[in-house]
Amino acid sequence: MDFFMDSDMYLRNVSVDNIIFGYHDKELKVLLLRPAGLDKWTVTGGYIKKTESIEQAACRITLLRTGLNGLFFNQFQTFGNPKRAIDPEFTSAYLSKIMGSPIPKDYWIFDYFVSIGFYTLTDFSQVEPKKGELEAECVWWPIKELPKMMFDHEMQIREALNALRIHIAHYPIGYELLPKKFTMPEIHNLYETILGKSLDDRNFSKRLLATGILVKLDERKKIGPHRSPFLYEFDQNLYDEKLKNGVDLVF
Amino acid sequence: MDFFMDSDMYLRNVSVDNIIFGYHDKELKVLLLRPAGLDKWTVTGGYIKKTESIEQAACRITLLRTGLNGLFFNQFQTFGNPKRAIDPEFTSAYLSKIMGSPIPKDYWIFDYFVSIGFYTLTDFSQVEPKKGELEAECVWWPIKELPKMMFDHEMQIREALNALRIHIAHYPIGYELLPKKFTMPEIHNLYETILGKSLDDRNFSKRLLATGILVKLDERKKIGPHRSPFLYEFDQNLYDEKLKNGVDLVF
Repeated sequence: MDFFMDSDMYLRNVSVDNIIFGYHDKELKVLLLRPAGLDKWTVTGGYIKKTESIEQAACRITLLRTGLNGLFFNQFQTFGNPKRAIDPEFTSAYLSKIMGSPIPKDYWIFDYFVSIGFYTLTDFSQVEPKKGELEAECVWWPIKELPKMMFDHEMQIREALNALRIHIAHYPIGYELLPKKFTMPEIHNLYETILGKSLDDRNFSKRLLATGILVKLDERKKIGPHRSPFLYEFDQNLYDEKLKNGVDLVF
Repeated sequence: MDFFMDSDMYLRNVSVDNIIFGYHDKELKVLLLRPAGLDKWTVTGGYIKKTESIEQAACRITLLRTGLNGLFFNQFQTFGNPKRAIDPEFTSAYLSKIMGSPIPKDYWIFDYFVSIGFYTLTDFSQVEPKKGELEAECVWWPIKELPKMMFDHEMQIREALNALRIHIAHYPIGYELLPKKFTMPEIHNLYETILGKSLDDRNFSKRLLATGILVKLDERKKIGPHRSPFLYEFDQNLYDEKLKNGVDLVF
């Protein structure tokens, strides 16, 4: 509970919110927390130590929640207006109940906080979420059926998803989300799921192949007696170069 | 000088930096300040009042510097790491000189500040910059010949310019930067100047016309005895719609 005790460790009036998206097998989810005793949910986030950068704060907080290290975070938007202040009455009552001692209403955590929004995308089947001491649950939620959210967090998820969709039109994805060898339908599903719309088969593979990041293998995946699509893998060098310089994949 | 006196008015540890780009007749500039007694420059920026949103802070600070109201700001990146703290020794000596009384080294403005970067684009020929009390100069500088910059401000300008270049591939520009009726070479110059590269004439006009935002008029501009290009204007409705929903203008 050190962040309630030691306000001197942290920056005032500015915090980090992490929208952690997870993809696996045609499903897009987001990692949410439910504070103990409440039936509303939040995204993962926290305060910034005076000794760390905002990116380090995002990584530290994510490691705490997911055990995952080395995720790549994208900033998508910073949120800041006086309405973002937590309701001190409500939160003080809630925190007193959890922690056993009353929190003064002028305590620093009740100020108006500017929040720097980051998002990342990982394979949710590889991540066992960890709840913190103040939380009842930490769960992967399907994007399509979000529960009741606290603060402006539903808007944050919407904005992060928009940013992710724009991002995948300009940078390759899939490396950590697909098996090493994958079929065209598998990577097609990945793009369709994130974009939330269906993409014409032939147009999709034509455009994706035109980027050069895929290598068609002389090998097929056996799905059924009449279905055995070719396997592909990423051209590591070209994939890395496109990660730096971008692709043009507007579908 | 109220922001030095009244730290209670402002958020701690978080501020706004505005990269104000100006375009006119094939020139791209940025608005810079030179603090009195120094030969380094900064972008315009300032602290956030507890009663205002970060966007309101960006607008208030810009109005102060330029007299311009109602500019549209885009967030492009938030910068935050412990190295951003101002050197208290240097700044205290400098401020003491200007203000006549010493500033304690543990004063709030010397903390590590997270800075929210905004950019905007306006017609520099319409704006007479105003210097503040602590500044020697406030000037439009050509992007191509930036002077020696303080802090991480040169990087901020570079990142803002990248963001502006990506932005104009997805959203129409020109409405406040060109005459009401303009020629294809005039809007071509605008795009070339901002993108910092030359664009093939025919390809440019073909792609721009395909967006539908231009209306070709039955009217020509007389430039010389053998040059009288057609005039165009923006289709206001389509322009506004594309401002909301985007265009695809990768050149």
